[in-house]
Amino acid sequence: MILPKKVTIIEVGPRDGLQNEKNIVPQEGKKAFINALKKAGVREMEITSFVSPKWVPQMADAEEIVRDVVDEKARYFVLVPNKKGLERLYASKATAAAIFVGTSDAFNKKNINKTTEESLREWAGVIETMKADGYFVRACISTAFYCPFEGKIPEEKTLNLCKTFNEFGVDEISVADTIGMATPEESYSLFSKLKDAFPNLLITAHFHDTRKMGLANILASLQAGVDRFDSSAGGLGGCPFAPGASGNVATEDVVYMLERMNISTGIDLHLLMEAIDIIQPYISRPIASGQYQLYNKSKENQPN
Amino acid sequence: MILPKKVTIIEVGPRDGLQNEKNIVPQEGKKAFINALKKAGVREMEITSFVSPKWVPQMADAEEIVRDVVDEKARYFVLVPNKKGLERLYASKATAAAIFVGTSDAFNKKNINKTTEESLREWAGVIETMKADGYFVRACISTAFYCPFEGKIPEEKTLNLCKTFNEFGVDEISVADTIGMATPEESYSLFSKLKDAFPNLLITAHFHDTRKMGLANILASLQAGVDRFDSSAGGLGGCPFAPGASGNVATEDVVYMLERMNISTGIDLHLLMEAIDIIQPYISRPIASGQYQLYNKSKENQPN
Repeated sequence: MILPKKVTIIEVGPRDGLQNEKNIVPQEGKKAFINALKKAGVREMEITSFVSPKWVPQMADAEEIVRDVVDEKARYFVLVPNKKGLERLYASKATAAAIFVGTSDAFNKKNINKTTEESLREWAGVIETMKADGYFVRACISTAFYCPFEGKIPEEKTLNLCKTFNEFGVDEISVADTIGMATPEESYSLFSKLKDAFPNLLITAHFHDTRKMGLANILASLQAGVDRFDSSAGGLGGCPFAPGASGNVATEDVVYMLERMNISTGIDLHLLMEAIDIIQPYISRPIASGQYQLYNKSKENQPN
Repeated sequence: MILPKKVTIIEVGPRDGLQNEKNIVPQEGKKAFINALKKAGVREMEITSFVSPKWVPQMADAEEIVRDVVDEKARYFVLVPNKKGLERLYASKATAAAIFVGTSDAFNKKNINKTTEESLREWAGVIETMKADGYFVRACISTAFYCPFEGKIPEEKTLNLCKTFNEFGVDEISVADTIGMATPEESYSLFSKLKDAFPNLLITAHFHDTRKMGLANILASLQAGVDRFDSSAGGLGGCPFAPGASGNVATEDVVYMLERMNISTGIDLHLLMEAIDIIQPYISRPIASGQYQLYNKSKENQPN
């Protein structure tokens, strides 16, 4: 097995996780969570979203989050859903933006009320401007393997979409199995092709653990040469527009597996547990990752 | 990725699962579960254990289970822990026996109050007799990667133990990551060596999902050429003598991943869900497999 020696984890819990949480986490809780994740060694993170608070009240404090946590030593992404969000990005001190496009029109329509083509037209000139203005731009490709409405997405379709974003000049593409249906073989196949096609682009794999294949897909993607993975502390997240998309792969389970395979992540597992301890009281469902369960069990067994 | 086209699942839920369940499942429930698993396509299964009912009251009805479910078209294993169990095997109509030895003395002592060497001495002549009498013999190697008391087990130690059982004439060795600590790399490494060393022996991989690496380890083992996997419907099981060993990898999640990769298991996923429906009311913890959760969600969403 030929595997990379070092991997970058892009923590998506504070944005992808909390955006999809039914409770609205107070601003101070979010900031403490983000800062604890940074303390654990996370250096790239989606921290919030400039989405309309009417649609996503969970992210209504985006300006305050960016103002108070942005750190020059870390790459903190803010999701920019549209041109209105772009104005808010420019008015903030954030330096890294994440934009989203689904491969399928049906998903894209439900998510942002535009076809994929309409989305691309919107972003075409904008990305060039953002790059000229010094922003780091991450393009997130949703439903890159399967769409909850259209089913299996042909590889060609995802590859073409990535090609377009590459031409637009993005720094990174994050390719997502939004509903957790990709198999390790499909992951290996698509990521091998992406790594071949775009040797100068940062390529990130984003898996959900809906069908418990999250770590198996990461293993397959490592074998395809991927060395960047999105994950969410506590396995928070999911997607309200994608039925059955619950649960990003948990950062702590990814870090454990990788570190045990001598693949460095730079993240301290114990400090990561402490970050989850901060957010856990606000979360409406149990945190079911292997590592957090073992951590809680070990606390129970300690003498008082 | 070079992978086998066909895999055999050895279902261990009725034995490994129910033996470690705190409730005692009534005999009729067990039989219905076993028969439903067979109906779903399971052709090899650990069905019960000739262990002392004083130690494991969950298995007190072993004779009745064997009498009523044994089927010539399936390979139904009964666990034989010692010579007393052997007498019960010979008095029954079971034709396949599973015997257990841990790689580490500490684990073996806790489990069966013998060192590994003492266990081997006990089994040496017995296996030869069993083979002469026409039994199928499966040797299960516990703590083949890690021991909860002794830590990391050197590969050499597990390989030597398998070598001994091969010389004893067993048909199959099932090599277990009893506490769910093996990484995909460790799985790949050990199973590659086992497949090389024992080309004429059936070699089975047995993983626990404690750290969520179950399917990743199966993927790695497939790449090492393994085509037999132990798993437990509903992810039932664990080991009372191994702290933190909760949860065999769930059969339904294994079947889903393999079938989606065009690796045939012969098991019908929907009928497997119906088998879990039969045992679920008796189980004291939630069934957390991806497939069973999705199945229940899809039932909720159906019109009445």
